[in-house]
Amino acid sequence: MAVIECVPNVSEGRRQDVIDRIAGALRAVPGLRVLDVQSDATHNRSVFTLAGDAAALSAGIPVLFERALADIDLRTHTGEHPRMGAVDVVPFIPIDGVTMAECVELAKSIASTVAERFGVPIFLYEDASSNPARKNLEDIRRGEFEGLAAKLAQPGWSPDYGPASPHASGGAAVVGARMPLIAYNINLATNRLDVARKIAAAIRMSSGGLRYVKAMGIPLEDRGIVQVSMNLTNYEKTPIFRVFELVKREAERYGVNVLESEIVGLVPAAALRQSVEFYLQLEGFSGAQVLENQLRSHPEA
Amino acid sequence: MAVIECVPNVSEGRRQDVIDRIAGALRAVPGLRVLDVQSDATHNRSVFTLAGDAAALSAGIPVLFERALADIDLRTHTGEHPRMGAVDVVPFIPIDGVTMAECVELAKSIASTVAERFGVPIFLYEDASSNPARKNLEDIRRGEFEGLAAKLAQPGWSPDYGPASPHASGGAAVVGARMPLIAYNINLATNRLDVARKIAAAIRMSSGGLRYVKAMGIPLEDRGIVQVSMNLTNYEKTPIFRVFELVKREAERYGVNVLESEIVGLVPAAALRQSVEFYLQLEGFSGAQVLENQLRSHPEA
Repeated sequence: MAVIECVPNVSEGRRQDVIDRIAGALRAVPGLRVLDVQSDATHNRSVFTLAGDAAALSAGIPVLFERALADIDLRTHTGEHPRMGAVDVVPFIPIDGVTMAECVELAKSIASTVAERFGVPIFLYEDASSNPARKNLEDIRRGEFEGLAAKLAQPGWSPDYGPASPHASGGAAVVGARMPLIAYNINLATNRLDVARKIAAAIRMSSGGLRYVKAMGIPLEDRGIVQVSMNLTNYEKTPIFRVFELVKREAERYGVNVLESEIVGLVPAAALRQSVEFYLQLEGFSGAQVLENQLRSHPEA
Repeated sequence: MAVIECVPNVSEGRRQDVIDRIAGALRAVPGLRVLDVQSDATHNRSVFTLAGDAAALSAGIPVLFERALADIDLRTHTGEHPRMGAVDVVPFIPIDGVTMAECVELAKSIASTVAERFGVPIFLYEDASSNPARKNLEDIRRGEFEGLAAKLAQPGWSPDYGPASPHASGGAAVVGARMPLIAYNINLATNRLDVARKIAAAIRMSSGGLRYVKAMGIPLEDRGIVQVSMNLTNYEKTPIFRVFELVKREAERYGVNVLESEIVGLVPAAALRQSVEFYLQLEGFSGAQVLENQLRSHPEA
């Protein structure tokens, strides 16, 4: 069965009763799993981690909008985090047995449903957007809720779905599809911050490096070493092993060794398989050969 | 939840109705999954691949003995494969959330139950046996059903559980615990069979190599190359990456490159994680960080 992750960001991080009502409504949707709810009072924002197939998410996301729009009013909302809507961002992320193209179609279908049902303008972003000027979340959200009416009136900023004016209390939402992020760090056996920074600059896209790498060099002061701290935004196209090998090669040029690397948080199994296949020169291997996957495909009778 | 694999070998590979009745009885056991049934008429033998926790297997294996003993009579059984009992071999294999020590305890507990309930002598083997002369299946099974009464009367061959004489129609069973086998092959970019054979001899335990490696060099005639064909019998203690690196190093000595490697059949996810951790020098990584494992630990409400 296809597994799609969905990580909606909602503009409420202080009123626990509101957050609980949203989570409760999502948990009641058949086939939808609520994996995690993280709320931040300073940001006044909550992040829900959901998983399900297309049907479960098509049923669940309208429920999310209904509950959030009933309880959240952006006209009185304050918080550190930039935001444009009560339901602010809704990314769909392919995990297992589903393509990015299918997640894009799902994002568009749900965006269309929600825009029509609730009168909320919706912008598509990342892989769901075909407009290069409207792929990046920060570009779309610039001006926030307070500048939304003016933004919607500008040329090039009519929404992909829904009315060309904000929902009075709920603003607008940004809906799209993206690959899972991998937070990946490589620690260097040196205290030379300049080396970590030069390597970060060499490997990140913004300064000429690999397409799906964001990187910076930082000190780990308590350990007396430095780190190349990274976000990998598309492990299929820029795999972990290639990043590791390139960092190792760049470090050599300064006479520095890689001490270790670390994956922070979650990583898709496919990203690990890629690295095994590269280093062991594995041919003809598939995820179906992983014993645990066989167990999962034979549920209890 | 703990997942234990169990792969009982039963001495019936011809009468489909008998095989079906056994499989049906196993499928009816709550919590027990029947992943696969492979029957071989020449061997007159069937291999059942089961998975479950300790409770499901404790309920299921006596059911297996009951059905097999009712329908199989070793006094009239013929087949190519060596065998000693109606239920011939029952290995328990730790897969997830369970230790080898727990599988050994489970094997002993089930062996004791079955021996007492059905009057079948049972030998422990592999990790469940503490007697070095009675670890290897071939050693225990030597003499087969026909020589069983004489064997049981010899010094050193009283069974671990049950009577010191064979079950009249059902013989004896060999029950134990072992690690999952990984069938792993490395193809060399040469047609020199002598090189594959020298490398196989260098890396396998029997001639001084790695403890949990069985290996031989064979030609892949249709491709004009040679292969080091291996069974890895304990990936925790002799990991895949160490085997790969040693073969690569030995091949260098003959001016030969590794062309590719392949995993045949199933491999536990932990064996892949080991290799990723080695090559990426990953510190502090755990299986709980694999996104799919998180999804599994949050079943649908």
